[in-house]
Amino acid sequence: MSRWEPNASDRLQEAALQLYLERGFDQTTVAEIAERAGLTERTYFRYFADKREALFGGQTMLTELLTGAIADAPAGAPPLDVVGVALTALGPVFDGRRDHALRRQSVVDANPALQERELIKLATLSEEMAEALRARGIDDAAARLAAETGMAVFKVAFVRWVHDSTDAGLAEIVTSTMNDLKALTA
Amino acid sequence: MSRWEPNASDRLQEAALQLYLERGFDQTTVAEIAERAGLTERTYFRYFADKREALFGGQTMLTELLTGAIADAPAGAPPLDVVGVALTALGPVFDGRRDHALRRQSVVDANPALQERELIKLATLSEEMAEALRARGIDDAAARLAAETGMAVFKVAFVRWVHDSTDAGLAEIVTSTMNDLKALTA
Repeated sequence: MSRWEPNASDRLQEAALQLYLERGFDQTTVAEIAERAGLTERTYFRYFADKREALFGGQTMLTELLTGAIADAPAGAPPLDVVGVALTALGPVFDGRRDHALRRQSVVDANPALQERELIKLATLSEEMAEALRARGIDDAAARLAAETGMAVFKVAFVRWVHDSTDAGLAEIVTSTMNDLKALTA
Repeated sequence: MSRWEPNASDRLQEAALQLYLERGFDQTTVAEIAERAGLTERTYFRYFADKREALFGGQTMLTELLTGAIADAPAGAPPLDVVGVALTALGPVFDGRRDHALRRQSVVDANPALQERELIKLATLSEEMAEALRARGIDDAAARLAAETGMAVFKVAFVRWVHDSTDAGLAEIVTSTMNDLKALTA
């Protein structure tokens, strides 16, 4: 029998990030992550399928924010604008956590296996946005194109936000990058 | 001492694809791929770093086509147009090989580890396009945005091409999808 552990998921994610920064991803074991968090390996695997997943918590919440915002957009709004507004809904998740994002990004950037996992997580979000657009009656090709393009904008905006010197919020930078795209395609 | 084997890389790639389709990716070993190709496991690892890589031959050629086309674009051409023209340069690599692309895609789509590898290959191409744009004097933010957006267009165009009922060429579909993007952002 296992007892309930408060904030187990958050503790494991923070412990994993600390160890990946200190020792490198490849040199860290799940047992060490669990120990650092004051939990068991078994508890780790209750929350995360493998060693990489501890850096990718919150995927369900991101999906719900994006698809919820797409569903709630005004009827008839152009699909790329709908995606742009949905992506700005992610701002509050990240704002105030820029130091965490920077530390996490340095770990991901150092390890191709983590980069691959990050890319498939983003691709999954893109597919879920496309599905939410189709549910609004947008045809498949336009839905996929708007979702993929939106994700391209978000990737560029996220890097800008992490390294931004003005402390602008992520939503603001997403909007500004979307405007840059409109200028590029004009 | 190993003797030179004609078309070893092509034979290994085709053998791998056949076995992944027949048995599944996880159920196939490198030894079996080498045997099917009439080669040794050691020869396999001379060409490919792991079991996944046999589905991702040609990355160097794709990089050279893209970055070469970007370098050769007329001075002052808008960055997203430069990327669009570069992506159409990939058409001749794929046209005439749609059946192969369909078989390969069905293997990749069935396996998350292959999807991850595919995504990082595409992300690498995007980074290399951004670098080629910066070499033309495009600023970093515009270069990254044009490259990521171009890759988004290419992903959507590639799926359209694989499933297209009109036998349109890939370059034509890339151009048409880029025009769809311009309409979406208008």
